[in-house]
Amino acid sequence: MSGYRYPTDDVRFCLEHIAGIHRLTEHFPNYDSELLDPILSEAAKFSEQLVAPSNRAGDINWPTISDKAVTETPEFKAVYEAMCDGAWTTLSAPEEYGGQALPRALEVAVNEGIQSANLAFSLCPLLTQGAIDAIETHANADLKATYLPNMISGRWTGTMNLTEPSAGSDLSAIKTKAIPDGDGYRIFGQKIFITWGDHQMSDNIIHLVLARLPDAPEGVRGISLFLVPKFLLDESGEPGVRNDAYAISLEHKLGIHGSPTCVMQFGDGDGAIGYLVGEENKGLMAMFTMMNNARQSVGLQGLAVAERAYQMALDYAFDRTQGVVKGSPEKVVIAKHGDVSRMLWQMASSLSAMRALMYVASVESDLKGVDAKHQKRTDLYTPIVKGWMTELSQEIVSTAVQVHGGMGFIEETGVAQLLRDARILPIYEGTNGIQALDLVGRKLAADKGEGLKALIYEMSQDAESFVGHKDLFLAHLDQLEVAAKAILNGESVANTAAYDFMMMAGYVVGAWLMLKGCQSSEVKQDWQTKTEFYVNHLLPRANTHFAGVKSFNVEDQYNAELLL
Amino acid sequence: MSGYRYPTDDVRFCLEHIAGIHRLTEHFPNYDSELLDPILSEAAKFSEQLVAPSNRAGDINWPTISDKAVTETPEFKAVYEAMCDGAWTTLSAPEEYGGQALPRALEVAVNEGIQSANLAFSLCPLLTQGAIDAIETHANADLKATYLPNMISGRWTGTMNLTEPSAGSDLSAIKTKAIPDGDGYRIFGQKIFITWGDHQMSDNIIHLVLARLPDAPEGVRGISLFLVPKFLLDESGEPGVRNDAYAISLEHKLGIHGSPTCVMQFGDGDGAIGYLVGEENKGLMAMFTMMNNARQSVGLQGLAVAERAYQMALDYAFDRTQGVVKGSPEKVVIAKHGDVSRMLWQMASSLSAMRALMYVASVESDLKGVDAKHQKRTDLYTPIVKGWMTELSQEIVSTAVQVHGGMGFIEETGVAQLLRDARILPIYEGTNGIQALDLVGRKLAADKGEGLKALIYEMSQDAESFVGHKDLFLAHLDQLEVAAKAILNGESVANTAAYDFMMMAGYVVGAWLMLKGCQSSEVKQDWQTKTEFYVNHLLPRANTHFAGVKSFNVEDQYNAELLL
Repeated sequence: MSGYRYPTDDVRFCLEHIAGIHRLTEHFPNYDSELLDPILSEAAKFSEQLVAPSNRAGDINWPTISDKAVTETPEFKAVYEAMCDGAWTTLSAPEEYGGQALPRALEVAVNEGIQSANLAFSLCPLLTQGAIDAIETHANADLKATYLPNMISGRWTGTMNLTEPSAGSDLSAIKTKAIPDGDGYRIFGQKIFITWGDHQMSDNIIHLVLARLPDAPEGVRGISLFLVPKFLLDESGEPGVRNDAYAISLEHKLGIHGSPTCVMQFGDGDGAIGYLVGEENKGLMAMFTMMNNARQSVGLQGLAVAERAYQMALDYAFDRTQGVVKGSPEKVVIAKHGDVSRMLWQMASSLSAMRALMYVASVESDLKGVDAKHQKRTDLYTPIVKGWMTELSQEIVSTAVQVHGGMGFIEETGVAQLLRDARILPIYEGTNGIQALDLVGRKLAADKGEGLKALIYEMSQDAESFVGHKDLFLAHLDQLEVAAKAILNGESVANTAAYDFMMMAGYVVGAWLMLKGCQSSEVKQDWQTKTEFYVNHLLPRANTHFAGVKSFNVEDQYNAELLL
Repeated sequence: MSGYRYPTDDVRFCLEHIAGIHRLTEHFPNYDSELLDPILSEAAKFSEQLVAPSNRAGDINWPTISDKAVTETPEFKAVYEAMCDGAWTTLSAPEEYGGQALPRALEVAVNEGIQSANLAFSLCPLLTQGAIDAIETHANADLKATYLPNMISGRWTGTMNLTEPSAGSDLSAIKTKAIPDGDGYRIFGQKIFITWGDHQMSDNIIHLVLARLPDAPEGVRGISLFLVPKFLLDESGEPGVRNDAYAISLEHKLGIHGSPTCVMQFGDGDGAIGYLVGEENKGLMAMFTMMNNARQSVGLQGLAVAERAYQMALDYAFDRTQGVVKGSPEKVVIAKHGDVSRMLWQMASSLSAMRALMYVASVESDLKGVDAKHQKRTDLYTPIVKGWMTELSQEIVSTAVQVHGGMGFIEETGVAQLLRDARILPIYEGTNGIQALDLVGRKLAADKGEGLKALIYEMSQDAESFVGHKDLFLAHLDQLEVAAKAILNGESVANTAAYDFMMMAGYVVGAWLMLKGCQSSEVKQDWQTKTEFYVNHLLPRANTHFAGVKSFNVEDQYNAELLL
């Protein structure tokens, strides 16, 4: 596998010239623009030199479980220690608990590198980040002071325990129980698909667990959130007695082999001791407030894995000699063949549009506390970042395999691993079908389309100064508005048309940001050519999805029972 | 993994009411229409009951190599014996050598079942079939009489040895040597990616090997084809002395684990003894004459694997209960959710269009000896069958994983295997980029578009009697003609636009056949609904590819060096 190269120029261009990261300086006292270059440069070194070499090991040397204890891929512990030593886990965390209080957008830039370098590994600090967010936002001061500093430093990691065998997309079906006991609760139940549910890289693991109190209302309004440490803390605040919370088996998965996916048993004996986070029966809302970040992170994973696959394909295409082209008697590298160059540009154009959206959404998310406008925009972007980007990532990793020809199918080449790893992305953290429903239901319908209208207005204003493709872009913008209206007024059936609407929105927003990038005085030739390619080859897909939205216009018009 | 169900009704409908298999009775004396039902019914039993249960074993119990001998997945030998005992290997072979001289279209129908049931296994008899074709068409009478009967009965299997490390898509770079020696030749060289290159299921293995004679012209005009048996025959025609042709290693692949992919060494010692097939230096042409069948077979594999994945998704969607829908307080199976039903119909519609094309192309291929028109049509269909169908198969297997949610990512569920297996299909037997070049180069340009014009004319005539979607279909037909002209007259750059043209042609031809099916008095409701879905959701993609063809209008407009 060729070496990973952090795409510093592209990341900086997106942050500075499309997302306008300078707007964050006034809201983040610790951040000034001088910091961007050194952080990107250190992130590049860390991900390229320390993280990337462990990627293949994770694919081959799977985590093992023995006596209810999981041992991770041997090569990972040193990487994790380097991550903590470099304080990479502390970037966006509050200073009060040892964090650097920097914008999340910077953390996203750092995470892009780590996720490209080793997706399976990256999930451990990422899930910890999610747990930190939930605790910080919802837990009481005591829990925060007790748990956050060690989680932020990376000494302890965190997990999110939502799914049960009968409660996946539908969390209302959660059965895990929480019985009040003294100051705390005893948790009983089984959770599945728990990422990094157990391992030996950290001194403690802080599980956040959704469970039901006795007599809680049925459905999602009866779910509470609990903090359940692997080791209960002793009087000095250090890990002491083992809690009754164990990984009991590991899943055998298509990809991300290095990430232990655990079945977790809480309360096989006296019950796992847990502490309430936030209010009783408000657990799902606590989860939702942190879901924007988690979902955007999965979109980022799509970008990151696809970027790595693209780089491998690019390297291979300039290394592999095969065939001749018109006007050259010598055999050429395959990158010179029309169809291979088509595939390379297809990947590169998609990636730049995805990256632009990723950093625009992350800066927006950093501003969401400033006013409702930024919050709304973040709400709107999140399902598109997660859904559209992880869909595109599937195409990119598959195309990267294709560029390799027969070698792409050989595991040692390494690109097949990325295809396997990437396949989880449209599924976890809410399937893309759920993202689409979130977009048309919660995000579009909740404010009767006002948020989208504001976005469309902003895009149309920007389009006024586009040098090329202005009319084409505006026509697509009109279609997006028509599609949104059709869904809002019920002409299109929201539940069925949701996916097409999400994809359409993604392609249009991607075009906006590519064209916007072309307006920058710093734009380079490759961005302009990628934009040309995008407008001619990716944007037209929005038409297909528009046709889809329009034609889903009768309730139950496609009854699956007819297929039986 | 739920049980595989051979899609008897769909296969019969495509063969009888779209492909018009009755036209074959006058050209195949052994075939009459009464045979269709019993053959499909027996094929269903064989694939469902005898082949399908071995599929997962092949994924887990990989072939092994020891002392230059490959041992296949243990469960496979009994399946292979059942296949020979059932005479499934003899269907289309000439009677003279023990075959049944039935139409190839019937064999395709049988193979669909076997490939759905176990793709990795199916490649062994399939490659044998390819070798039989090459020998039958090009070898002298003596070779035919000596080798064909045992290959047709299945006692001996066959392989195709084309690829070398530096000669993949570009066979002109082949280096393997053939030195004349008495009546035969001594072969020296290494071949890679040799499917079922060695195993213990048959008494002998007949390798067909591309190699160069001394002083052969450079390039593809200096390649000859040789028959190289694993065991040389003794005087009674039985396998005797071991030939100097050995598998020396096995590839570790993403999928089709049960199919041993060998590195073959010919002539590590005194040279592997081989016999010339056809004329000297005409080896590549010998390969090409059988490539139509082999390439159509890979298209069939796309259909077959995708069908299996779709069935698993359908079963899961009607088994898994999750969430509620409007108007029902009870939790429902996920097939009732709009987005899941969208995915199921997307798969089902694509599959029916693919199946229609598959059987139309195979009946056409059976008629290609009758007149030049059928030969031309077969030439045109072949790259579309291979390219378009294997591209669609990727989307279908991935969608089938998606329907399974988190369970789709767990290997034990079984659908992930199909995603891994399917990924080879756009690559082998000529990558889809090569198929596209074949379509616009050899097939379109060779007769200045006459063959395509005839097909477009036939489609437009059929469209006259379409009840719905006539105008929409005709508009797409016009676009296809415009795109073909643009490529032929150089307005679009053929090499770069080829892929988009191939995909566009696939979607339009698929629409034609779906709509044609709707004209049949035997059409059922599900076919009609699938056609509606296809026209509204799949056909619009042709517009995107049309935009692609048009916009690739400048030579070298996307230079990949800009991406470095």
